[in-house]
Order: sequence, then structure tokens, then C-alpha cells
Amino acid sequence: MGRTSDARERILSAAETLMLSRGYAALGVAEICAAAGVPKGSFYYFFASKEELALAVVDEHWTARRAEWDRALAPDVPPLARLRRLYESTGDGLRADRESCGVVTGCLLGNLALEMSTRTESVRARLREVFDEQVSLVEGTVAEARDRGEVTVADAGAAARALVAQLEGQVLFAKLYDDPGRLDVLWADSLALLGAEAAAAAG
Amino acid sequence: MGRTSDARERILSAAETLMLSRGYAALGVAEICAAAGVPKGSFYYFFASKEELALAVVDEHWTARRAEWDRALAPDVPPLARLRRLYESTGDGLRADRESCGVVTGCLLGNLALEMSTRTESVRARLREVFDEQVSLVEGTVAEARDRGEVTVADAGAAARALVAQLEGQVLFAKLYDDPGRLDVLWADSLALLGAEAAAAAG
Repeated sequence: MGRTSDARERILSAAETLMLSRGYAALGVAEICAAAGVPKGSFYYFFASKEELALAVVDEHWTARRAEWDRALAPDVPPLARLRRLYESTGDGLRADRESCGVVTGCLLGNLALEMSTRTESVRARLREVFDEQVSLVEGTVAEARDRGEVTVADAGAAARALVAQLEGQVLFAKLYDDPGRLDVLWADSLALLGAEAAAAAG
Repeated sequence: MGRTSDARERILSAAETLMLSRGYAALGVAEICAAAGVPKGSFYYFFASKEELALAVVDEHWTARRAEWDRALAPDVPPLARLRRLYESTGDGLRADRESCGVVTGCLLGNLALEMSTRTESVRARLREVFDEQVSLVEGTVAEARDRGEVTVADAGAAARALVAQLEGQVLFAKLYDDPGRLDVLWADSLALLGAEAAAAAG
């Protein structure tokens, strides 16, 4: 058997793949069920609506990405090296994406933020929590680098928001130009944003 | 009369407003015609398809925005002051947006880049041209600032791409958090990205 027991997972996985390449509005429940290989009745057993599915996809996606963020930002190396590892891991993700989908599909969370923010308050609220969490993780790393005298920023929170904005902006261009190499500049740009050179010169 | 003669303009204007708040896939031709107050037959007289309409909306939108870019980047003030004027004009745009729509709808070009890049090659190609043009305008300004010894970047093109990415990233967050104030940090962040302080210290 097994078909029923993993139906929810298969719906989530199919929806995530389809949403990455096509967005939310363009998808229908029937198409998601066909891709997942489950009958439409199963869908409504697990999800009250497409909106509820979108929330579950965001959670599932961020849980997986969050594990990558935790690995990249783990304190086994100094804070700036962790940040660099985060960019490399994001670039690797876009490259893997391109291998499997044939095209850079970008960041599901950024895609949904632009597509759904003005239309679905529940998804907007959940995406805000996710990006707040991303900023908070980066902020902790930036604050640690500042305590070590490696960067000169006055406001670690504002700096973290700038770094995450820079990352989302470059991922947008990686998607538009179908080129994961767009992320290669993030490290140097982040050092400039953080005033790392000024700190090195003063140190 | 007059209804026929301005029908194309009214379709474009309605489509632009609807696409800003709801995206492309969620829209139907019937809904656009209803908002524009034109019969569906008129639509297909002017546009062969919804895709062709999307291309015309991108052109119309960028033509209007391009005029704002030209005003902001006009050489009546030094290059860095032009860049600052561009950010202020973008922030003003988001605020006006919020006044008229009740919510920050963000950047139509960035929204469409994320929604349509992987799905509609013609729109992707047109959006690449638009963003190439934006980068080129910023690059000219950055190169001039560098010639005056006001910034220290080695590659004005890469710096311009970073500035436009930073702008798109912060507009994404302005939309997600419904807060045009997110753009207020762009000026300081751009000075850091461009190494303006280092240039001032060396000058």
C-alpha cells in the first residue's frame, strides 16, 4: 500500500515543484493531484484549500532551507566565513535547481512574496515570519563579527536586512538571466556593505 | 464617441493596475476588459493574446518609469546626488502607490520577472532589456562618480548591478511588509557598496 500514507507528502512535494516553476495563481488543484499521483478527494482530505496548501508548502520549504542555513551559519568557523558559506550554499542550490529543472527557478519564498503579498494575507504573514527569521539569523552573525572588530556597522539588524535584500535581489536577476553566477559577487558586496575593509584598515 | 479611439490605452491602463496588484496568471481577458470598460472583441482587435498585452504593459510601464529615471539622473547635479534622487523618486512612487491602491504593490517589472521568467520567453527577453537599460543608466552615473574620485569601485558595471539588485530586494521587502520606509536605507547602503567613504578618506 503506502499510497495513502505518503499522499500528503507527495502533494506537498509536487506543489512545491510546480509553484517554483509556475507560481501559485497559475496552478490548479487537479494539476497538483495529477503530478502527485493522488485522487482529488485526497487533496481535500489533507488541505481545506489551495491557500492552506500554499502555507504548508512555505513551511515545508523553509524547514528544509532552514536546515541549510543552520549548517552554513554553524559556529565551527568565524562569523564572516559562515556568511560566505551561506552564499555558497545558496549558489549551489540555484545550480542544483538548474540541473534538475533545466532553468533557474529562484527563491520560492521571494517568488511567493511578490506574487501573493497583496492578495493572500495568511501567506504574507507567514512569509514575513520566515524573512524575519532569516534576518535574525544573519543579524546574530553580523553582531558577532562586529564584536570581533571585523565589521563596522552601527545597526546589525539594518545591516542584516540589507544583506538579505541584496541576496533576494541577486536571486531575482539569477532567475531573470537564468544564471546562478549572478550570486558570485555577493561576498565582496557584503564585505563592502558591512564596512569590513574599513574595520581591517582600522584594526 | 472617443470610446474606440482610446480603447487600447484604457485596456493597457487597466491591465497595468490589475497586474500590479494581482500578477499575470491570475488575470483573465474578460476581467481586464470589464475594468477597462471595453467589449472583449476590442481586446483582440488590439492584442493577439494576453502575452502580447503583457509585453505592451511592460513597454508602457517602463516608458513612464524611464522618464522618471531620466529626470532623477539628469546631470544638473553631481552623479551621487542623482543616484540619491533616483532612490527618493522610487520611494515616492511606492508611497503614491500605497495612497492609491491602499497597499504597496511594488515594482511591476520585478514582480513579472519572478512570475514570468521561467514561463514566457518573450516577456523574459523584454524584461532583460529593461533591466539591462536600468543597469546601464546607473553604470554611467557610477563611472562618472568614480572619475571624480568620489567612489572606489573597480567595475562600474558590477557595482551598478549590485545597486539595482539592492533596490529590487528592498522593494520586495517594502511590498512584503507593506512599508515604503524600507527604501530609506538605500542611500547609505549604496555609499557603502560603492566605497564612497573610502574615497572620501583617501581624497
